[in-house]
Order: sequence, then structure tokens, then C-alpha cells
Amino acid sequence: MRKNRLPSVKRGLIIVVSAPSGSGKTTLCKKLLETNHKLIYSISATTRAPRAGEFDGKDYFFTNVKIFKKMIKNNEFVEWAEVHGNYYGTPKKYLEKTLSRGYDVILDIDVQGGEAIKNTYPESVLIFIAPPSLDELKKRLVTRAQDNSKTIALRLKNAQKEMSYVKFYDYLVINDKLDTALDQLKSIIRAEHTKIKRHKKPNLYLN
Amino acid sequence: MRKNRLPSVKRGLIIVVSAPSGSGKTTLCKKLLETNHKLIYSISATTRAPRAGEFDGKDYFFTNVKIFKKMIKNNEFVEWAEVHGNYYGTPKKYLEKTLSRGYDVILDIDVQGGEAIKNTYPESVLIFIAPPSLDELKKRLVTRAQDNSKTIALRLKNAQKEMSYVKFYDYLVINDKLDTALDQLKSIIRAEHTKIKRHKKPNLYLN
Repeated sequence: MRKNRLPSVKRGLIIVVSAPSGSGKTTLCKKLLETNHKLIYSISATTRAPRAGEFDGKDYFFTNVKIFKKMIKNNEFVEWAEVHGNYYGTPKKYLEKTLSRGYDVILDIDVQGGEAIKNTYPESVLIFIAPPSLDELKKRLVTRAQDNSKTIALRLKNAQKEMSYVKFYDYLVINDKLDTALDQLKSIIRAEHTKIKRHKKPNLYLN
Repeated sequence: MRKNRLPSVKRGLIIVVSAPSGSGKTTLCKKLLETNHKLIYSISATTRAPRAGEFDGKDYFFTNVKIFKKMIKNNEFVEWAEVHGNYYGTPKKYLEKTLSRGYDVILDIDVQGGEAIKNTYPESVLIFIAPPSLDELKKRLVTRAQDNSKTIALRLKNAQKEMSYVKFYDYLVINDKLDTALDQLKSIIRAEHTKIKRHKKPNLYLN
């Protein structure tokens, strides 16, 4: 007998999306969010200062180093990282609340973060997005003209390093054509929801 | 250095689809095959006589009991079963040939057959299609007016028995609305193709 009077909501999925810079991850995630209203882009806590147009609680949870370090100590992050002197992390409480409301949550994090999530939440879905080749990645980085040649060389080197983490991931989406890659991402999420292990007592469906 | 001069073809998937009678499996598989041209419906060998309009090598591989039993003995089936005195089986050679040509193969078999396939081919994809409830299944069986009440009672009893095998399956598709169920089936196949384990040396993609 259920004592909880709230309607039963199926817990959402944790979807980790990682990709080398220039693989088209940002565009893909944006398009995915536009078409899937049960999907939420995870908001990270950060110690870096807000940029123009960024809002607390929308783009990031802005905080300071003292509070962030205390949160680390209290085990309040599911994963966190220090990048160029700034801290970034996914607050456990925020993640749990969103999942329990039945929303799938996209964590746009790097490969180390992905590995950490998989260890804490083995049921999470890890997707790696990769360009079709290193040559193609280089071409894209040069074309978007955002970085100088030194930064591009570093990004290419990092991309190769990141690929060695692919073995921790569940799915590999090669972003050759955007529509195909988007279709694959949608399919992965849809398919994961039909996994037997995600159904509660599946053998009772016919009782 | 590749010595094989033939173009490299990615091996197809084995997709087992099982469902209680009346769950809409036949309609779903038919629609799936219409829209996916890299998908083949597996042809079984059988000892039952051809019905009007059935052709050897298209609907079944028709054979006799002596040959069928010899094939069982020679381990030429990936799974086989005796149903109402007739033998049915999936020939290993036919399956392997189709997969190696890069086609995904649907095996429309019962839950015992599904379990056998999973043991032989752990990489196979097992999908169970179920009606939303036992009441709904009963309604469908009564509406299609194909069976008498005794047969319907037997089918309902079998449905419950079959549901106990769901734990061996990877996915559970609840066929409430046909379009949604079809979409889920398509997504499962698409997603399975992006699984890391199905990519050859995924960490070499960027080298």
C-alpha cells in the first residue's frame, strides 16, 4: 500500500554528454533541448564571475571559493573540477531534485567528470560526441576562427587525450551530419527509457 | 595493412522481438520493416506444410522432419522449438550470412528462444513488446475475434507466463499507442548502433 499521496513520477535519466571542443556538442545539445521538454540542461555552481547577460540560477549558480570549498568538503557535489583557477561543480541536491521531478538532466561535463558520474550513478547514460576525424576537427576549429593556432594545436592534443576515455562511455555519436547525430541522440534517450532495468517490476505489467 | 579487398561491412544486429499474442507485434514489425531497409525479417526453417501463398525461402525454409532432426544434431540452429507437432528453427548459416552482409535481423521468436539467443549471442538485442495491461490484452483478443473464449483464456494465461521471462530482455516496449511503440522500436535499433561496444576500436577514431 502506497502511503505517499503524491502522484508517482518516474525518475529522470542522468545524461552525460562529453566531446572535444569543436565537435558540435553545444549546437546538438541546444537542438535537443528545443525538441524535448522533459529534458533539462544541468546548471553548475561556479566561482568564476558572471559575464554580461548571465544570470544566477539560470546559467550558473554563482558562488565564492570559500562556499565552494565548504561544499566540496561536505560532499555536496556529484562532480567538480578546477579549470584555469575557477571551480565548477554539479550540486547533488539540485540534480536529485530535478531527477525526482521526472526530468532527464544533461550534464555537459568533461571526461573525468563523466567517469566520476558513472561511478556514483552506474545507471547514468554516458554519451561521447566525436567529429568524424582529427582532420575534420582541425578544419572546424580553423573555420570557426575563435582560437589562434597555438590554442587549436592544444585543443587537438586534448581531443586525442579525451578519446582515451571513450571506453567509460556507453554511446559514441559521430557528428558528421548534424541531423543524423541529433537523431541518434534523441534515439538514445528514447531507447534508454524503455530499458527493462528502468521499469519498476516489469513482470507485474500484466498482473 | 588490410589484406581483405572487400569493402569493410559493419556486422548487423540480432534483434529478438517477443510478445504475447495480441500485443500488436506483427503490425509493429511490418511497419518497422517498411521504413528500415537495412533490416531483414529472419526466415525460419519449418517442418509444417506450406499454406496457400507461402513460398520456400521467402516465408519459411520448408523441410521435413528427418532433415530438421539431422540439422538439430549437427548444431545447425541457433534456436529451435516444437510447436503442436511441427518444428521451427533459425538456421545459423542463414543468420550469419545476413549479419555479415551488414543487415540487422529480426528474430520473431518466443521467450524461450530469446533466452537461447542471448546465451549464444550476448551482443543480441532482446525486445519484449507488451500490451499496457492484461485487461487491454483481453479486449484486443476479443475484438479481433480470431479465437474462441477457451483459446483466449489460454492466450492470457500464456501471456502472464511469458512476462516472467522479461528479466532476460533488454527493452520493454509497452504498445499502448502504435506510433509511440514504433518510434521506440526504431530508437532502440538506432541507439544500439551507436553503442561504444559496437564500434571497432573507438579510441582510434581521432587518430
